[in-house]
Order: sequence, then C-alpha cells, then structure tokens
Amino acid sequence: MMDTTVLTTIPSAADIKAAAERIAPYVNRTPVLQSPRFNDLAEGDFYLKSEHLQKTGAFKARGAMNTILVHKDEALENGVITHSSGNHGAALSWAAAQIGAKAYVVMPSNAPEAKIASVKHYGGIITFCEPTLEARESTAAQIQSETGALLIHPYDNYNIIAGQATATYELLQDHPDLDHIFVPVGGGGLLAGAALANKYFGKAKVIGCEPAAASDAHESFTSGNWTPVSKSDTIADGLRTSLGRKNFPIIQKYVDDIVLLTEQEIENGWHYCLETTKQLIEPSAGTGIAAAIREKTDGKTGIILCGGNMDVRKFALR
Amino acid sequence: MMDTTVLTTIPSAADIKAAAERIAPYVNRTPVLQSPRFNDLAEGDFYLKSEHLQKTGAFKARGAMNTILVHKDEALENGVITHSSGNHGAALSWAAAQIGAKAYVVMPSNAPEAKIASVKHYGGIITFCEPTLEARESTAAQIQSETGALLIHPYDNYNIIAGQATATYELLQDHPDLDHIFVPVGGGGLLAGAALANKYFGKAKVIGCEPAAASDAHESFTSGNWTPVSKSDTIADGLRTSLGRKNFPIIQKYVDDIVLLTEQEIENGWHYCLETTKQLIEPSAGTGIAAAIREKTDGKTGIILCGGNMDVRKFALR
Repeated sequence: MMDTTVLTTIPSAADIKAAAERIAPYVNRTPVLQSPRFNDLAEGDFYLKSEHLQKTGAFKARGAMNTILVHKDEALENGVITHSSGNHGAALSWAAAQIGAKAYVVMPSNAPEAKIASVKHYGGIITFCEPTLEARESTAAQIQSETGALLIHPYDNYNIIAGQATATYELLQDHPDLDHIFVPVGGGGLLAGAALANKYFGKAKVIGCEPAAASDAHESFTSGNWTPVSKSDTIADGLRTSLGRKNFPIIQKYVDDIVLLTEQEIENGWHYCLETTKQLIEPSAGTGIAAAIREKTDGKTGIILCGGNMDVRKFALR
Repeated sequence: MMDTTVLTTIPSAADIKAAAERIAPYVNRTPVLQSPRFNDLAEGDFYLKSEHLQKTGAFKARGAMNTILVHKDEALENGVITHSSGNHGAALSWAAAQIGAKAYVVMPSNAPEAKIASVKHYGGIITFCEPTLEARESTAAQIQSETGALLIHPYDNYNIIAGQATATYELLQDHPDLDHIFVPVGGGGLLAGAALANKYFGKAKVIGCEPAAASDAHESFTSGNWTPVSKSDTIADGLRTSLGRKNFPIIQKYVDDIVLLTEQEIENGWHYCLETTKQLIEPSAGTGIAAAIREKTDGKTGIILCGGNMDVRKFALR
C-alpha cells in the first residue's frame, strides 16, 4: 500500500490539515498577540502569530515534528540526523525526543554556546566537525552510514513545508479575514507553507520579508530563475541560507511579493517589537516587523514572528 | 457623607476587591505565564504574573488608575501631578488620559529619552527641571499652586497600595493554592499590596526581593525601624527608592521575608527570563526571578514580574 503521508508533491489543503492534527498533541497553539501601542506606532491593525512562544522557541518545531511522525517507524529504529546548527537542530532533537527516537546533530566546532546548549537540552546527540559545509556534510554522511539515521532537511522537504504551513493555518483559523501576511524568508519552508495555507484557507496577500544582505529569494522571485545566495552577511542569522529547490516554485506561484529590508530596518523592527510588545523575537523575525512598519498596509495585517532564539547574554545591564 | 473610597488606613479585603472592580474596565487582566523550560532550569513550579504586559508596561497602571478614579472629580477639575520620572509618571499620564484629566509630570532634564517618550506618548504634560530632588519638589509645588493639581505619590498612599494589591489578588484568583510569592520591593507599594492580598485571599509565604545594593527595606524589616536608603547603585532602577512610611508597617506585619540579591544574580535572573520565556522584563523584575532560582522553593511559586520598561535601544545586534 502506498504511504500517502510521505509527501512527494506540493502539500494539498488536506495535507496541511492532516499535519496540523498530527502535531497538535505536541506543539503549542501559539497565541496571536495584538498590541495597541504597536498598532499606534506602526499605524495599522496587526496580528502577531507568536512562534517565538512555540516549543523550542521557533516555528521549526512544527515541520520537524510533522516529518518525524510521518517517518515514525524509521525514526524509532535508526534515529534522525541533520547538520543544520540553527533552530532546526534543536527542533529535530526536541521532536525526536517526543517519540523516544534519537537525533544526531552535526555542528561546527565554532557554533555558539547557546545553540549547543539548546540542542543538548532537548537531548540531541552532537558530533562536532570543522566549520565548513563540506565537513558538515561528510560527517553527517558518515554518521548516517553507521547508524542508518534518516536525514531530514530543514526546509527542502514537502513534509517540512506542510508542517510549517500549520502556523499560518492556525493564524487564519483565528483571523480568516486577514488582508496581508508578512513572513520572513530564508530557506523558504515557512514562506512556502504560509503561501499554501493562505491559498487554501485565506484571502490575504502573502509578502515574503528578506534581508537585502541575503537577497536570493527576491532575486529568484523577480527573475523567475532559482538563484543561490551569493552573500549573506546579515544580522538575521536564520535567513542566511538559499531558497530550497522544492520551496521556490511554490513561492513563485503563490507569494504576492518579496520585499527587501536593510540591516538598519531589521534592527529597528527588532527594537520596536521589544519596546511595544515586550516580546523577545530573534533578529530574523525583525524583518516581518520592519516590513509592516514600512509598507503601511491597510486592513488587517498578520505577521509571523518566526522565533525568539538568540544569545541574550551579550546584552549587559551595566 | 464621609467618602470611604479615599483610604486613610490599611486597605481591607473589601477595599482591594473594590479597587479591582473599579480599575477592571481600564487595565489588562495580565496573563499568568508558565514555562516548562523555565521550570526545568529553575527546578520548581512557577507562575509568572505578567505585569510587563500591563497597560504602560508596569503594575503602576493599577495604583494610578485606582487613585485617579477615587479622586475623579478633583482630577477632572484640576488635574494630577507627580515628580516621579519612572513608571509612575507614565502610568499617571495614561490613567489621567483614560478619564480625560490632565497629568503634569515633572522630570529631571537628564531623564532617559525612553521615559520622556513614554510620558509624552500617554499624554502627560512634562515640565523639565534641574536633576535634583529639591528642584523636582519645588517645581512640582509651583505647578501645584498654579493649577491646583492633586499630587499623587507613587507608593506612600493607601489607594495606590490597594490598586497594586490587585495584581496579587488576580494571581490568587487564578492560583489560590500558591505556596510562595516573590515580589520585588522598592517603595513597597507592590509588596505591601501583595502581602495584604495574600493575607485576605491566599495562604502563601510572601517574600520581598530587593537588590543588596539598595537594601533599605531589608534593613527596616530586620531591625524593625524604618531606615531610608543610603546607597542605591543598582541596575534594578525601579527599586532604588526608600520604603514608604505607610508601606513599612504593612510589610513588617504581613511579609514573611525579604531576601537580598546581588547585581550579578539580578542580571542573571533577567537573562534567564529572556532566554526561557522570551519575555522582556525590566531589571527590577529580575530580582523575583533571581530569588526564585536561588531559593529552591517547594510547591507552587508565584513571581510578580513587575514591569518591562527599559531602554532596549542600547542593545545592538551587530
């Protein structure tokens, strides 16, 4: 019998609903925050989907949990593996632990303390390697061949996309009449998911928010040709990666626009969110706030606050 | 007929209930947050009363709103005035605006931009003066004599105390079985209110949390003699003031203990809260977190997160 839960094509409305049901016992139904002071200052009517309050501090818990549950038997037998050192590594560790599976996380030897601590906290088995993509891939391949662990890509995967789509699906369940939704874009899992959820369940314009300093999604979207990232020196560390191959066509077809934010705008958005809502978001989430402040959208505007993980120990009070 | 709403003695249970009803249409019923990750790391079962999500970003909105409503006719006729440049100034401005009254706020010329902006945002009428207590008091007295505005003390006032008590009253409505409650103490409005609310509606031990670098409440509590603050060089800027004369006897009688926190513990508590809950609290609120981490209380422990106002623009992302 064909296993229809392992998606090999663009997720349907039913696939997104199924993902939402599948992960519901594990993830948080995150609140949609409204802040009168934020609305005053940004001059609009904003609905903040608060994935910084998600398990593991980022939306990544959704896709990881969905994909592990879809591959449950395999994951339980041999474990799962990733060489993403960002939020996906912690999310995969957490998701694997929910069903008692092992998660192997390959991290560069120079990874930030906070990220190492987070993966450890959620029970991930860390292997350090040289800080190059080549070393990460070869180390992961070696662990895979030794353990048979399933490699789960952080975004270039339809089950991951269906999982991330559930954030926007929930937002639209709460506020079906949103006119715009701002969504940060790095690898494109969150944005592709948002665009699909909105296509099936909403009527909003979906706007990707990308750092000008890592503008590959904007270039790909504008040119119609998938273009890898050539530079990525942005404070929005979660958005430094290239758009995924599976993500690009979805974004190309169903996203309305991708806007570019300067580093100053992103930092300003981050400050703005802290000041008015008292919510700690990560710099990547500042792109959505920055775009909302600048674009002056009419009607009801959703913003996906993608996560809240960052090294706050660098902020000294004296 | 005697006006029984202007309190001239220690608030009763009925006074606190009346204050809660009086201010309910204006203030937020703030959430009581729980964080599995915070509980894991601090090794306890914690309930965070989130006054950083209160109107104006601090519990001060409660006392200010209560006192202005009690003096509504006077406030509408001549306005209200304060020379507190902290959260009380913004709270009084906000509360006055709710009923269409004027609020005069005397601020030192070197007050932080963020505080000036906050008072302005809520419609307070600012008069700048030399940065000395003498100049603040004489400037306030002059405006008072010109306008007839009612001076509302930030904490040494029974109606203020009854208003602040509503934070703990709400917490105990949600969780009547708390075993401990940690409460920051500066002037003692919040702590005296917490102790009274717990005396009437709870069964917890109430523990004041004070910076060792501004330890007057601890000294007064331990010696039994009201002792003004002699040094106050602490990052917990909301807690630099001396205990109020009306607040001290309440605290003396109904608070179980006052613990002292080092600057390092306060900063650590602040970091800890940001990391695990993604909530921006102000340094003063870090005392409650720090005490909870150190004291390792059994059972259910409440923590009053007193506010979330601080200058976050000093935190650069690059």
